Amino acid sequence: MTPNELKSLIRTVPDFPEAGIQFRDITTLIGHPLGLAATVRHLAERAKACGAEAIAGMEARGFIFGAAVAVELELGFIPVRKPGKLPIEIIGIDYALEYGTDRLEIDPGAIQHGQTVVIVDDLIATGGTALAAAQLLRQAGATIDDALFVIDLPDLGGAQRLRDASVEVSTLMEFEGD
Amino acid sequence: MTPNELKSLIRTVPDFPEAGIQFRDITTLIGHPLGLAATVRHLAERAKACGAEAIAGMEARGFIFGAAVAVELELGFIPVRKPGKLPIEIIGIDYALEYGTDRLEIDPGAIQHGQTVVIVDDLIATGGTALAAAQLLRQAGATIDDALFVIDLPDLGGAQRLRDASVEVSTLMEFEGD
Repeated sequence: MTPNELKSLIRTVPDFPEAGIQFRDITTLIGHPLGLAATVRHLAERAKACGAEAIAGMEARGFIFGAAVAVELELGFIPVRKPGKLPIEIIGIDYALEYGTDRLEIDPGAIQHGQTVVIVDDLIATGGTALAAAQLLRQAGATIDDALFVIDLPDLGGAQRLRDASVEVSTLMEFEGD
Repeated sequence: MTPNELKSLIRTVPDFPEAGIQFRDITTLIGHPLGLAATVRHLAERAKACGAEAIAGMEARGFIFGAAVAVELELGFIPVRKPGKLPIEIIGIDYALEYGTDRLEIDPGAIQHGQTVVIVDDLIATGGTALAAAQLLRQAGATIDDALFVIDLPDLGGAQRLRDASVEVSTLMEFEGD
């Protein structure tokens, strides 16, 4: 399946989680017998071209795509977690959301110094979460040059924000006007 | 890698999340370049033998293994989510924890009536979450005969609890005395 065919499997839900937001729902993509596998193979091909030595994915939807990409390439997977989930020796980063702040945590022992880690997530909107993940992984010694997303919402400027932080962005599909 | 070799990649963290608990940490298993792929292939082989027509995994660590198993078998993946994450038409189930209650939600549209869905998660302890997931998926029309886990903590009785609900349990490794 091509990225365009995969795009047709995304369900758009109006006014979720609040009025005026068009929610791009991957449930229908990953529920399709070939949709998830084809998406993962496109991402894996790009991760390989980026020289990935490990894959990082953000909790929770980033786990769906990131871990499967790691399996395709026989690489380790680094979970970027919400607070309080990892048992030991964690490092964390707080970052701003539209309202309030959020926090990501990783186990720095999962990363070898200088290792090329490619970030995988389902969607890039403002890029706040991905940028925080890149900063945190770099703090643990990773080389972060590339981030891959299934969906780009280009009007929200996230890809540009990551490029400004020297992270190249590659996405399989775009939804404009969000 | 054999299940026994994979078991040697699990890190045990004493006294997390509270005193007296031995936390079996998969971070080290999935961070190993071959550990995650070998684990997923063992699970995929068993899911295939169970006649899986779709895979369901529980947020968040179940997404790591479950989605990758679905990709291996080219099957759809059904995310069993924490409350408030799915945009529409959800059904949910509340279930008891040691202290308080928790809730799981799914999109019933992701399931075809009678479809054989195999549950995949990282660990079975008391089995409360897996049992709730099985009940919820059955409510949506799925046939649930099998659940697969990387780790079993047999002293906590979860596998027996699932078998009592007509769900066969298969696990790759056990840690006794927990």
